[in-house]
Amino acid sequence: MSTRTPLTVGVGVLGYAGVARAHFNALRKLPYIFPDPPVRLHLVGIAGRSPAGADGAARRYGFDYGTTDWRRLVEDPQIQLFINCSPNDTHAEPSLAAAELGKHLLCEKPLARDAREAKRMWDGVRRRRIVHQVSYNYRFVPAVRFAREMIQAGELGEIIHFRTQYTDESLSDPSTPHTWRQEKRRAGSGAVGDIASHVLDLGRFLIGELKQVSGMSRIVTPRRPAKAGSRTMKVVDVEDLYVGALEFADRGMGTLEVSMFCPGRKNFLTFEVNGTQGSLCFNLERLNELEVYRPEPKGRRDRGFKTVLVTDRDHPYGGRWWPTGHIIGWEHTFVHQLHHLIRAIAGEETVRPLAADFQDGYINTVLCDALVEAARTGRRVNVK
Amino acid sequence: MSTRTPLTVGVGVLGYAGVARAHFNALRKLPYIFPDPPVRLHLVGIAGRSPAGADGAARRYGFDYGTTDWRRLVEDPQIQLFINCSPNDTHAEPSLAAAELGKHLLCEKPLARDAREAKRMWDGVRRRRIVHQVSYNYRFVPAVRFAREMIQAGELGEIIHFRTQYTDESLSDPSTPHTWRQEKRRAGSGAVGDIASHVLDLGRFLIGELKQVSGMSRIVTPRRPAKAGSRTMKVVDVEDLYVGALEFADRGMGTLEVSMFCPGRKNFLTFEVNGTQGSLCFNLERLNELEVYRPEPKGRRDRGFKTVLVTDRDHPYGGRWWPTGHIIGWEHTFVHQLHHLIRAIAGEETVRPLAADFQDGYINTVLCDALVEAARTGRRVNVK
Amino acid sequence: MSTRTPLTVGVGVLGYAGVARAHFNALRKLPYIFPDPPVRLHLVGIAGRSPAGADGAARRYGFDYGTTDWRRLVEDPQIQLFINCSPNDTHAEPSLAAAELGKHLLCEKPLARDAREAKRMWDGVRRRRIVHQVSYNYRFVPAVRFAREMIQAGELGEIIHFRTQYTDESLSDPSTPHTWRQEKRRAGSGAVGDIASHVLDLGRFLIGELKQVSGMSRIVTPRRPAKAGSRTMKVVDVEDLYVGALEFADRGMGTLEVSMFCPGRKNFLTFEVNGTQGSLCFNLERLNELEVYRPEPKGRRDRGFKTVLVTDRDHPYGGRWWPTGHIIGWEHTFVHQLHHLIRAIAGEETVRPLAADFQDGYINTVLCDALVEAARTGRRVNVK
Amino acid sequence: MSTRTPLTVGVGVLGYAGVARAHFNALRKLPYIFPDPPVRLHLVGIAGRSPAGADGAARRYGFDYGTTDWRRLVEDPQIQLFINCSPNDTHAEPSLAAAELGKHLLCEKPLARDAREAKRMWDGVRRRRIVHQVSYNYRFVPAVRFAREMIQAGELGEIIHFRTQYTDESLSDPSTPHTWRQEKRRAGSGAVGDIASHVLDLGRFLIGELKQVSGMSRIVTPRRPAKAGSRTMKVVDVEDLYVGALEFADRGMGTLEVSMFCPGRKNFLTFEVNGTQGSLCFNLERLNELEVYRPEPKGRRDRGFKTVLVTDRDHPYGGRWWPTGHIIGWEHTFVHQLHHLIRAIAGEETVRPLAADFQDGYINTVLCDALVEAARTGRRVNVK
Repeated sequence: MSTRTPLTVGVGVLGYAGVARAHFNALRKLPYIFPDPPVRLHLVGIAGRSPAGADGAARRYGFDYGTTDWRRLVEDPQIQLFINCSPNDTHAEPSLAAAELGKHLLCEKPLARDAREAKRMWDGVRRRRIVHQVSYNYRFVPAVRFAREMIQAGELGEIIHFRTQYTDESLSDPSTPHTWRQEKRRAGSGAVGDIASHVLDLGRFLIGELKQVSGMSRIVTPRRPAKAGSRTMKVVDVEDLYVGALEFADRGMGTLEVSMFCPGRKNFLTFEVNGTQGSLCFNLERLNELEVYRPEPKGRRDRGFKTVLVTDRDHPYGGRWWPTGHIIGWEHTFVHQLHHLIRAIAGEETVRPLAADFQDGYINTVLCDALVEAARTGRRVNVK
Repeated sequence: MSTRTPLTVGVGVLGYAGVARAHFNALRKLPYIFPDPPVRLHLVGIAGRSPAGADGAARRYGFDYGTTDWRRLVEDPQIQLFINCSPNDTHAEPSLAAAELGKHLLCEKPLARDAREAKRMWDGVRRRRIVHQVSYNYRFVPAVRFAREMIQAGELGEIIHFRTQYTDESLSDPSTPHTWRQEKRRAGSGAVGDIASHVLDLGRFLIGELKQVSGMSRIVTPRRPAKAGSRTMKVVDVEDLYVGALEFADRGMGTLEVSMFCPGRKNFLTFEVNGTQGSLCFNLERLNELEVYRPEPKGRRDRGFKTVLVTDRDHPYGGRWWPTGHIIGWEHTFVHQLHHLIRAIAGEETVRPLAADFQDGYINTVLCDALVEAARTGRRVNVK
Repeated sequence: MSTRTPLTVGVGVLGYAGVARAHFNALRKLPYIFPDPPVRLHLVGIAGRSPAGADGAARRYGFDYGTTDWRRLVEDPQIQLFINCSPNDTHAEPSLAAAELGKHLLCEKPLARDAREAKRMWDGVRRRRIVHQVSYNYRFVPAVRFAREMIQAGELGEIIHFRTQYTDESLSDPSTPHTWRQEKRRAGSGAVGDIASHVLDLGRFLIGELKQVSGMSRIVTPRRPAKAGSRTMKVVDVEDLYVGALEFADRGMGTLEVSMFCPGRKNFLTFEVNGTQGSLCFNLERLNELEVYRPEPKGRRDRGFKTVLVTDRDHPYGGRWWPTGHIIGWEHTFVHQLHHLIRAIAGEETVRPLAADFQDGYINTVLCDALVEAARTGRRVNVK
Repeated sequence: MSTRTPLTVGVGVLGYAGVARAHFNALRKLPYIFPDPPVRLHLVGIAGRSPAGADGAARRYGFDYGTTDWRRLVEDPQIQLFINCSPNDTHAEPSLAAAELGKHLLCEKPLARDAREAKRMWDGVRRRRIVHQVSYNYRFVPAVRFAREMIQAGELGEIIHFRTQYTDESLSDPSTPHTWRQEKRRAGSGAVGDIASHVLDLGRFLIGELKQVSGMSRIVTPRRPAKAGSRTMKVVDVEDLYVGALEFADRGMGTLEVSMFCPGRKNFLTFEVNGTQGSLCFNLERLNELEVYRPEPKGRRDRGFKTVLVTDRDHPYGGRWWPTGHIIGWEHTFVHQLHHLIRAIAGEETVRPLAADFQDGYINTVLCDALVEAARTGRRVNVK
């Protein structure tokens, strides 16, 4: 154990519902799961739409105060890290304001509603001495990290395929109400920005840059109730699903499918990688597992996909949590991600390549835009 | 049991290696698995390249003779059914010659090397009083038939997605020798005609006609040894893999991926169907199973994908083979398919819609051509 | 290929329903799946209770005649191989009569109703120059044979555990009618002789001789309708289920559970073997697969159970049927078993150790009796 | 939200390594996962063998102090809840001392080394006005709770079978060092008290009281290194594995197998329940899932085991954590368990039947003793 006094970093969070809860949990958990941390966290403030909501969250998660004004967080000198968990249309302005004041940033994905807006954000941070990270938390699933390590070490040979889907059933019921995610003005795009962005990021994380995309999309349900049970209908102007094909810069190819119209799928982010020397499969609903196929030595006939429970001591984040075979949950990815960020703030690590920074966030929006354009024009779109 | 004397149908088979063996097995098995058949089979002749091969096969499988001349089969008055298991470039001529002489036809898939050739075949049979069937045998997997019955009965609601892949590892090793399947002149196309044709046929069988396709392809290994161990290399001029997206006439969408570069996959034809009311998954390596998701009645919380072992007495072909839970193999699909054909010859059934006829075979080549064109041009291609 | 003229072996079968159909199929299939066989089969006669049934089966499966008198088969000089597929209480007398006349024997399992009767059968054949085999067909599942080969080669180290279950749902419904299997006088025992006998045989085949057993049993449904829908009830006087523990001679230990009261299980024969160096799992409902766990070389972190599709060319019976990944069915085990028997008749193979002979059949009844006694007395029972 | 001021409960924990970490995590997490709790927790002290260890844990997890003297905790008037995570031989004395001073108790399992000692503990708490709970945390896996709810509601009909195993590979390597768990004086028994106790508790939780047991055990490795790498060997005098059969009071029967000699198994606690109307399967390595088989309505043919992801809002603890399909980990069971305890302390709940109290802990040791006796004597043992 080191004896230095760690730096204290004050934290402000914009947003208190939805995924913000996973960030709060990470902030609470980090200190005792990763003891002797390079910085000490001071939970300062939470901003959100409703005063009661912001105050309640602040009390519940141990922050000093709640507020309805994100500028108060951005300007609070006690805060050095600004976590933006708000909807897509409030990613840019608060994040850029915080950056201008030298705050470190963790922004939810997608970084922005389109590549133009994302470029502005990336431009706003790139020359400042701040740490900026985008919350592509699935990079921090131990099995995903393990997949990357195997691929990077060349254990699968040349990568020929990356096929991926992220499907659930959340919009299958037409009476499910409209939210900001169905509104182009606020979300930028639909299934593409919401969930394709995740698997595109994993594609880049695991395989590398993309070269071109093609595909089709559909608005399955063009109108949804304004609220649960309401007879007022609101227009859906972003795609509900996307089906496409990808080519990577190194010639690997694959399919991508995202949809909220798949009954029985709950959080079904899957990918399969095929290299010349082996294959990998992952499924977020069983996130502790990685399926691995590799050739056997001569004389062995027991060839097959292995189900690897990625909880051993020599696995990524192994030994941080519980003994072998004692699985972790979805939320743990946020703890890992925060730990990475904190180390970057302390200068012990760089955000890239293990986490996504604003440049990655920007590139991701370029890819999302390309998918949308390919669907609109019916043409294959080059992304570089 | 009926007491009528069944018609005798003489059978000639072109080809004796590879998939021909599955047809021979079906011809031998049919009489005692489907007793009291509408026609009696007389196994007359086998034609093939080598005299020893043809004679050996004839002896082994109980045919009257072997020959190296397919015209002898076509012209033999004892033969009323001509089964063409030869490579793609000898589908048209012998089949059309047999049709002209009024023989019934069962032709291996794809019907022809491209839509033009297939159209000629379809034109050559459509006005004759013969039965013509294409060997899309996976329609006769009980689980696939069961899937179709559920979809047709509306049990899944409106179909939103059909995603499919057919992958194996057969070309993953670059020293695997060249065959006629890697030669455009003989095969027409590569992975598209060989395996995409199967999943396209299943798409039509399960969901309906297609509207448009897009995608990309690649020749991963541009040259292969002429023979095992040979240093002479032959050019591969057809695609090794294909990745694409599909849209059906009724607006369902999905992805299609076919490849022989997926280590660990052996015969991995899979599909997933998502409707508004449920989902289905199938995997040919576990062909006795169908995964089914359907909503539960109110008050039930045990929601999930069911693994249905499709061997019960009330399942398709249930009771034909063994008791519940006693699984069948890949070859059984050929027995079912032959039974269907025989019944069509006897006038007890029509080839369509449960089997594929030459029109289906033709449409399939239109789709294959569209995939190839989409990859070549980078544009979405309408198929009608 | 050899050019000798193969010996012709005439075959008579007692029984035509149930499992007999799998034997008929094997007899028909053997000649073309295993071409150039050491003996040629002549399908002579079938005996059974009903004249129409026996005649119909003879016609369907290509035998010369049907009869209601098994003695006719036994005494027919054209018959050299007598296959006994009748209920347990007619195993001994016809088999012994056939043995006395020098016929080779294939008898369904269990060999007899108890060890005393089985001993008489074993004594009746052991000094004659005949081949005698008991139809423990699961030894001929390729994955089971592969498991044995791995264990015998020491690839799993010392075997510590063998746990097994054979469960289905066939008696779960109390209105399922009574059969001879529920009658001690005819069956000897219930779930023990019917299905525990199979997994005990596999235990011996895979691990070795047993040393002691303990356990409990139950008659869940003491009375069943005499026939479907009947209100006349017949007494069940044999156990419906058994739960127990096993110790092998080499100190390996495990549990055994057999039951027909497990809803959702269809033909769920499973076993797991744990050795000091690895583990294996098998499930008859997925009989083409074997799950294998073995340690990885130093530096490898992809540890896990592999799902091995046992259809490769270098797997047991690989190449006999279809290409890699094209699965076989339950019935194929009978073809393999018959092939083994035929080779033994031709002097090219011995029945043991790969198949079970009447001595194995006898030992198996000793084990079944021990299970029954352990349940009755509440004491651990030594089996040797 | 309620406005009452919650009671504050001071907490002392004996032990800081191993499972204690899961208790610490629960103590930290409870307040924000279950907000507005009935009592407020004050983390007072941690006692353990080493001063540095106890102090370090106190700092890390936010306790006021560390100490090497458990009596200090027991006597500290600020402490009202004493959590005993020490080895089995220090369960009784500290827990009884705390009970005498009126402290509430949460004790790790098994409650004691044998039934005699456990009876003394149960006697020491039963007439006091304290809450006492034993940490059988697997009762708090949502899928396990869901299983119980289905069984209790009669959805599976009469229960015929409960088969269970708890296996891992932790002792498979003979060089794995000796610990107190291999010492009868300290642990009471081996695999029985350590892991059979868990599945016995689940058997009682799910099915009900037991009637009799039989079985066998073995010490596979009679001596182990005193420490890692040491050549000094220590004797193992408790069983390494157990195989047995169970009968429940209501006539359900099953098998039980526990072992640390199963390569590839990491934390493989599984059970299967078969009732007259359905079946359930559970596996702790996939603890978010429950497999469920239930009959389908007439006319439905999609019969099979469902894989239920037990994360929906209407599932046990659903909505407490993350959205549907976002899985939780092993540690969460301790949070649920602590929440239950806290509510019991606040008088809002009773420990039984959802949690195990000291009476359950005592009954569990009776069962463990019976297993040991059955193995020793070779006789079936009545447990009541």
